[in-house]
Amino acid sequence: MEGLTKIDDLGKPRVVIVGGGFGGLELAKALADAPVQVVLIDKQNYHTFQPLLYQVASAGLNEGDIVSPFRKILSNQDNFYFRLAEVQGVDPVAQVVETTIGRVRYDYLVLATGATTNYFGDEQMAKNAIAIKSVDDAIELRNTVLSNFEQALQLGDMEQLNSLLDFVIVGGGPTGVEIAGALSELRTHVFPKDFRELDFKQMDIHLVQSGPVLLKGMSANASQQALESLQKFGVQVWLDARVKSYDGYTVTLNTGQQLITRTLIWAAGVTGAPIAGLRPDCLLPGNRYAVDEHNRVQGYDNVFAIGDIAAMRTAAHPEGHPMVAQPALQQGRLLGENLARLLAGKPLQPFHYQDKGAMATIGRNHAVADIKLFDKEYHLQGFPAWLAWGVVHVVSLIGFRNRLMVLLNWTWSYLSHDKGLRYIIGKAKPPLQEAEVEEKAIV
Amino acid sequence: MEGLTKIDDLGKPRVVIVGGGFGGLELAKALADAPVQVVLIDKQNYHTFQPLLYQVASAGLNEGDIVSPFRKILSNQDNFYFRLAEVQGVDPVAQVVETTIGRVRYDYLVLATGATTNYFGDEQMAKNAIAIKSVDDAIELRNTVLSNFEQALQLGDMEQLNSLLDFVIVGGGPTGVEIAGALSELRTHVFPKDFRELDFKQMDIHLVQSGPVLLKGMSANASQQALESLQKFGVQVWLDARVKSYDGYTVTLNTGQQLITRTLIWAAGVTGAPIAGLRPDCLLPGNRYAVDEHNRVQGYDNVFAIGDIAAMRTAAHPEGHPMVAQPALQQGRLLGENLARLLAGKPLQPFHYQDKGAMATIGRNHAVADIKLFDKEYHLQGFPAWLAWGVVHVVSLIGFRNRLMVLLNWTWSYLSHDKGLRYIIGKAKPPLQEAEVEEKAIV
Repeated sequence: MEGLTKIDDLGKPRVVIVGGGFGGLELAKALADAPVQVVLIDKQNYHTFQPLLYQVASAGLNEGDIVSPFRKILSNQDNFYFRLAEVQGVDPVAQVVETTIGRVRYDYLVLATGATTNYFGDEQMAKNAIAIKSVDDAIELRNTVLSNFEQALQLGDMEQLNSLLDFVIVGGGPTGVEIAGALSELRTHVFPKDFRELDFKQMDIHLVQSGPVLLKGMSANASQQALESLQKFGVQVWLDARVKSYDGYTVTLNTGQQLITRTLIWAAGVTGAPIAGLRPDCLLPGNRYAVDEHNRVQGYDNVFAIGDIAAMRTAAHPEGHPMVAQPALQQGRLLGENLARLLAGKPLQPFHYQDKGAMATIGRNHAVADIKLFDKEYHLQGFPAWLAWGVVHVVSLIGFRNRLMVLLNWTWSYLSHDKGLRYIIGKAKPPLQEAEVEEKAIV
Repeated sequence: MEGLTKIDDLGKPRVVIVGGGFGGLELAKALADAPVQVVLIDKQNYHTFQPLLYQVASAGLNEGDIVSPFRKILSNQDNFYFRLAEVQGVDPVAQVVETTIGRVRYDYLVLATGATTNYFGDEQMAKNAIAIKSVDDAIELRNTVLSNFEQALQLGDMEQLNSLLDFVIVGGGPTGVEIAGALSELRTHVFPKDFRELDFKQMDIHLVQSGPVLLKGMSANASQQALESLQKFGVQVWLDARVKSYDGYTVTLNTGQQLITRTLIWAAGVTGAPIAGLRPDCLLPGNRYAVDEHNRVQGYDNVFAIGDIAAMRTAAHPEGHPMVAQPALQQGRLLGENLARLLAGKPLQPFHYQDKGAMATIGRNHAVADIKLFDKEYHLQGFPAWLAWGVVHVVSLIGFRNRLMVLLNWTWSYLSHDKGLRYIIGKAKPPLQEAEVEEKAIV
């Protein structure tokens, strides 16, 4: 394999990073000047800015504006090598990663595989629900929402009609709150103009949250504000409610209540995405690898884990840090420095999480933010929070081009009350079955 | 079918337009103030700006920037109705169109179904080649080009390597010339940075043209300039050559010459896309409907055809007008006016094609243009032609948002020598077969 053999020519220790999310990418960058060869393996050729996936799903942004090809981001980093492949396992004795393009040797292995949607073993749910965890998910959801209304034009029966117009979102974290808000904006400002023949008073948006508050983990103030804003926007919020089952049409809650929808959006939890081959005892509940304060996987010398897949249990975070961007970014950066220290024979620095707070947007001019700066906590809501949310997300995007495009799209949407990207391209839901359409009349 | 029945409430004559390309969309707009109900049926929910598809294929533009949802374009037109459906046939006696969502009655039917890729009956070619006729085609080509290089990293054998790095484009019209130019730009400015391990001197771009000149139909000057520019950019142009066969790996020309490639781009011709149910004698060779000077299909009173699917045989164009945007736009506009005249009992106006010329871009600062203004013809080449090409295409795009986004993307690409959208999302080629990779070494 000449292509891969060339990698070896550097003659430096090789760091193999599995996964190019926030943590893996930050680590690759942090190793730019280290005397190592950096090999990043990912099953996509691009980094995804996950916090904005819900905007792709709601026709506000092009998928192209929130992804960045790895080769483009790091084209100037001489020690960086990328391989498009899926990792199937690791052999820690041979120090080799098994992938769909062959075996890749490592000196240091860093698992940054992130998290995947957690259906808690409910296979029927996994089959029928739509998640918002990847670009493909977001595109599928956008296409499904748009197809629903096209199909609704063919139906007369009220329950059938509502099965297409109504949406049930499960999970009251940031993703659930944000997609609920985005759908309610589309219902108010966009869809009634597009589909004059449909009555959007019939379109219900349900948000089901298992606990007593939305945005668990944020301040009580933020949770309450999010609830009030969503209710103001006409979202029906079900607190302390769990979905017992969903067959693709009927949602049954633990209260016995039933909701009818062909579109259930599952934002109710994630679980680590471990790979085969490591000792089972280093995997904690939640499928996260137990790591020490240097992100070293328990029981291994040269295997590390960062971000969502790593659980560094500390006094403040006994089950590991929150599975969001900041711990991944900070761990990636520190591990880059620590690997350089390791090679230089210097002592490693322990990880200290710097919590910068959390934010969620609910819709036009409405957001909540708990911001931690210099050990002080600030609570923002309404327009200031919404503006802060926008600034933080634009600045965090990778590359000038994406920042500019997202900023322009947002400015355009804000001024025009419009979401321009309402096209059905790519994976879409199948058309209604013949039997589902009551009548094929000559009109 | 309540949704569709509502359409009838207008109680006005119904014009059903099949296909929302340049002609169909222009007609729908032109009928805005006519006392008719306009029903547009298309299998996509968006209009595609086909002249820029090749830029989506070469990672220069987002697909979202060159498509516009029909419902968005015409959301302010009260007499406009859209249906997302595929048309399966027409029953001119019952005055009904058969579609995948049922039967749709018409008073006036306008066929604007456009053209489809013509493989001249070569099924092997249809299976193995990639076209650039739809958004799906363009996305598939972009993903294929990018996947090729990722896969090339796994190969050592020189012929195998070249099968992935080399491209054969069949057809020397504007599309063939433009994609050849775009690939050569990527080869020079973009890919060598992305794939430092590959030797892009190995990447050959072949353009095969059956006739003696490129851009047949344009001025001799333009044809010659296009040829010289492509050769300067390192494209191997084969004039007077035809592809005899392609099995997905080996291209055999009529000269006996063989080229090796896994990616053959077919831009060698289109054919009309007629629908079942009309009398066979109104269909001319090339699958275009014979229409009179009012675009009325031969032998029918209330069935019309416009654009690529219509062949209006005139002294200047004995086989019908060129299958490009301008005749479609002009016929759509005139037919809108003529249908209003028909309903008002006024005499119809005959169609006179106003030829505005033709243009093609070859790459950065290089284009050719034959522009007809006030009965004079102007020939531009090089930078002025390239600038004119850009202005005409930006202005022709639908919607301010798309114009702005395309302009910004182009400005960005021009200044940075970069094509930013090098992500593999959507339909992609399958990975190499196990047997195709010689060796899966531990590297």
